[in-house]
Amino acid sequence: MKHSPLVQGLIDAFTCLPGVGPRSAQRMAYHLLERNREGGGHLAEALTSAMEGVRQCSRCRNFAERDLCPICLDSRRDQSQVCVVSSPADVLAIEHSGEYRGRYFVLLGQLSPIDGMGPRQIGLDQLEQQIQAGDISEIILATGTTVEGEATAHYILEMVHGTAVTVSRIAQGVPMGGDLEFVDGATLAHAFRGRRPV
Amino acid sequence: MKHSPLVQGLIDAFTCLPGVGPRSAQRMAYHLLERNREGGGHLAEALTSAMEGVRQCSRCRNFAERDLCPICLDSRRDQSQVCVVSSPADVLAIEHSGEYRGRYFVLLGQLSPIDGMGPRQIGLDQLEQQIQAGDISEIILATGTTVEGEATAHYILEMVHGTAVTVSRIAQGVPMGGDLEFVDGATLAHAFRGRRPV
Ligand SMILES: [Zn+2]
Ligand SMILES: [Zn+2]
Repeated sequence: MKHSPLVQGLIDAFTCLPGVGPRSAQRMAYHLLERNREGGGHLAEALTSAMEGVRQCSRCRNFAERDLCPICLDSRRDQSQVCVVSSPADVLAIEHSGEYRGRYFVLLGQLSPIDGMGPRQIGLDQLEQQIQAGDISEIILATGTTVEGEATAHYILEMVHGTAVTVSRIAQGVPMGGDLEFVDGATLAHAFRGRRPV
Repeated sequence: MKHSPLVQGLIDAFTCLPGVGPRSAQRMAYHLLERNREGGGHLAEALTSAMEGVRQCSRCRNFAERDLCPICLDSRRDQSQVCVVSSPADVLAIEHSGEYRGRYFVLLGQLSPIDGMGPRQIGLDQLEQQIQAGDISEIILATGTTVEGEATAHYILEMVHGTAVTVSRIAQGVPMGGDLEFVDGATLAHAFRGRRPV
């Protein structure tokens, strides 16, 4: 069946969401059009506001609406302890574990020269500045166990070499080759407690 | 973890979609913010356009962007044969079956006095006008097998009584108490071929 252009456009647009194929997208479009146009309008506004208003924290590169994110602004957290992760979703997973009370540094990617991802593209120059400035006493590497995650961890380790910064790496319980965001909170909490100096 | 207001607003807004709970909503919001802001902006535009621009066909009440929907405008379809369904999603399911070449009448609901859904609320006055005007030679009832669906079918049967309109009802293959939109195309095609006069 051929949908009218606006309906088809909405169905196509929904497929940009993770895990949403043409059939789910169609159900979403029909559901809103039939039963919840107000919700659809509200979702449009929330999308526009977030896509335009959510920027990066100037210190940790996580999502932020102001210059600094809520975690970097939180004086009850140890701002000298820095956990390095690949993505904001990883921050979320670790926060859910409830184990960690330091701050983060979010790479928004991993070292992958073949894809044009060098140290600058993932903010490692910025992390180096923070190390040189003496702002960081401990780094916890949580960049994952993929080839790129290992390469990224190795690069940071070299960077820290010769400074007073302690480096450890979350290890136990993180599945091989997996993304942190799919790991449950208890496993992540365990991995944090079991971290080892490298 | 407390999200920033715009991120939390986006997560909440995503839960208006069918089958999307807080966890999926969070993944959707993070996915767009991390990896596809353009797609997010595009989805916002498609939502706004569709919620504002998709209206009802003046003849069959299905989704339409102009006065008449594509099916009511299609001269290759038998415009005197009318299949009565509850929702646009039912139209879609029947169109996918590829069996039916008439047009539709979409109730956008079912008779349910307790919920304030009387004959006028589901457009039965409009259907009656079309019957009285002699525009309809055959009605196929596909209002489903729920109590409300049965009540709706019964009401239409009474309405047609004493006119020359033939009435049949799709029967075989439609599961009891189920929504048409979840029925596969082959089953629906079978149900159409097996329709019986009532
Ligand atoms: Zn921050
Ligand atoms: Zn129509």
